[in-house]
Amino acid sequence: MSTLIDKLRWRYATKKMNPALAVPQDALDRILEAVRLTASSSGLQPYEVLVVKDPALRARIREHAWDQAQVTEASHLLVFAAWDNYTAERINQAFDLVNEQRGFRNEGWEAYRQKLLALYPPRSAEENHQHAARQAYIGLGTALIAAAEEQVDATPMEGFDPARVDEILGLKARGLRSVLLVPLGYRQADGDWLVNLKKVRRPTEQFVSTV
Amino acid sequence: MSTLIDKLRWRYATKKMNPALAVPQDALDRILEAVRLTASSSGLQPYEVLVVKDPALRARIREHAWDQAQVTEASHLLVFAAWDNYTAERINQAFDLVNEQRGFRNEGWEAYRQKLLALYPPRSAEENHQHAARQAYIGLGTALIAAAEEQVDATPMEGFDPARVDEILGLKARGLRSVLLVPLGYRQADGDWLVNLKKVRRPTEQFVSTV
Repeated sequence: MSTLIDKLRWRYATKKMNPALAVPQDALDRILEAVRLTASSSGLQPYEVLVVKDPALRARIREHAWDQAQVTEASHLLVFAAWDNYTAERINQAFDLVNEQRGFRNEGWEAYRQKLLALYPPRSAEENHQHAARQAYIGLGTALIAAAEEQVDATPMEGFDPARVDEILGLKARGLRSVLLVPLGYRQADGDWLVNLKKVRRPTEQFVSTV
Repeated sequence: MSTLIDKLRWRYATKKMNPALAVPQDALDRILEAVRLTASSSGLQPYEVLVVKDPALRARIREHAWDQAQVTEASHLLVFAAWDNYTAERINQAFDLVNEQRGFRNEGWEAYRQKLLALYPPRSAEENHQHAARQAYIGLGTALIAAAEEQVDATPMEGFDPARVDEILGLKARGLRSVLLVPLGYRQADGDWLVNLKKVRRPTEQFVSTV
C-alpha cells in the first residue's frame, strides 16, 4: 500500500472528470466517515457536508461557480457548509452528546462548556462563522487524503458565489453557509490540461524553518 | 497497515505528552513533507510552518497559550503561521515558481495570475490573512493524519495569544501571523485524562445529508 506522501503526490485538482464513472457508495461513505472523524475546535464539528447528486441542482450551482464543469460532470458534488453562528443551543448539543456517549459528566468538561458559552455566543455571527469555516478546511484536508486513499479524484473549489449556492440548497434556513465545493469522481485524462503537469510546491527551506 | 479511518480513530488531542520521548527526524520530515504537498487555494501555500525546538522559546509561548503543558513537554512544537497579506510579490513568486518548474509559460495560467493580482492585493490585509489562515487548516488536517501515520501524537491548539506568539517568534517582520500550534510527541497515558475516553462525533445523519 502506498504511503500518505504517495497519495498526496498522486492527487491533484482534477480539471476534467469522466462523467461516465460513478464513485461507489462504499468509497463515498469512507470518505465522508473520515471527514466526520477528523478534528475540530472543541470538537464542535461546526459544519455539515451535503452530497449533491441531483443533476438539476448541480446545473444551477455550476452557473454560480464560474461554470466549472466538474460541478456537473463529477460523480458527486460535496458542499461543505459551516454554521452561520455559534449559539448556546449548538454548543450545548455538542457538549450534551459527549456526556451522553461517555456516560458521565466531567467537571473540567462542564467548566469548558461554560467558558465557550461565555465566549462564543456574544461574538458577532460573522466572527463565529469565520471560525467555523476554518474547521471545515480541516475537513477538506482530510477529504482530499480520504479520496486519494480510494483513488477517487477531487477538486477543491472556493470559486463560487456562496450566497447563491446557499439559496439553491436552502442553507440559510438550516443555519449554514457554504464555504467549499468538492466534486468527487474520476479524472478523464485526455481532456485535462493539468493531469500531466508537474505538481509544484515551494521548496522545504522556504516552507519550514526550525528555531 | 491500518486504513485512514483507523488512523483517525487512533488519534486524539493528546493532553499529556511524555517529555522523555523524541520524534525521530525522519518521521518529523515526513509529517512536514505531507503538509508541504497538500492543497491550497491557487497553490499559493500562503503559510509557513515553524518547528520550535528551543526550550526557552517554548516556555515563553506556553505562558501565552493558557499554560498548556504540551507546548513545552511535547517533542516538537509546530507553529502554523499564515501570510499577513497577499501581495503582488508573493503572488508573482508563486506563479513564477510554477513556470520555472514546469519549464514553460501557459496562457491560461498567466491569465489566472492577472486575475489574482487584480483581486487580492486591493483587498484588506485582514481579509487576505483570513483567507490565508483557512489554507493553514488544510495543512492541519493533513498534519494530523501524517502524524497518525507515524504513530506520533499531536494536539491542535487555537488557544493562545497570536500577537504575543508572533512577537516571541519575530513573525511580524516575516509578514506572518501565527494561527495554530501543534505540539508533536508521544502520549503519556497515565497522566492523560482524555486518552481512554470515547471519541465522540455527531452521528452521520446529523453531519451528512444527500440531495
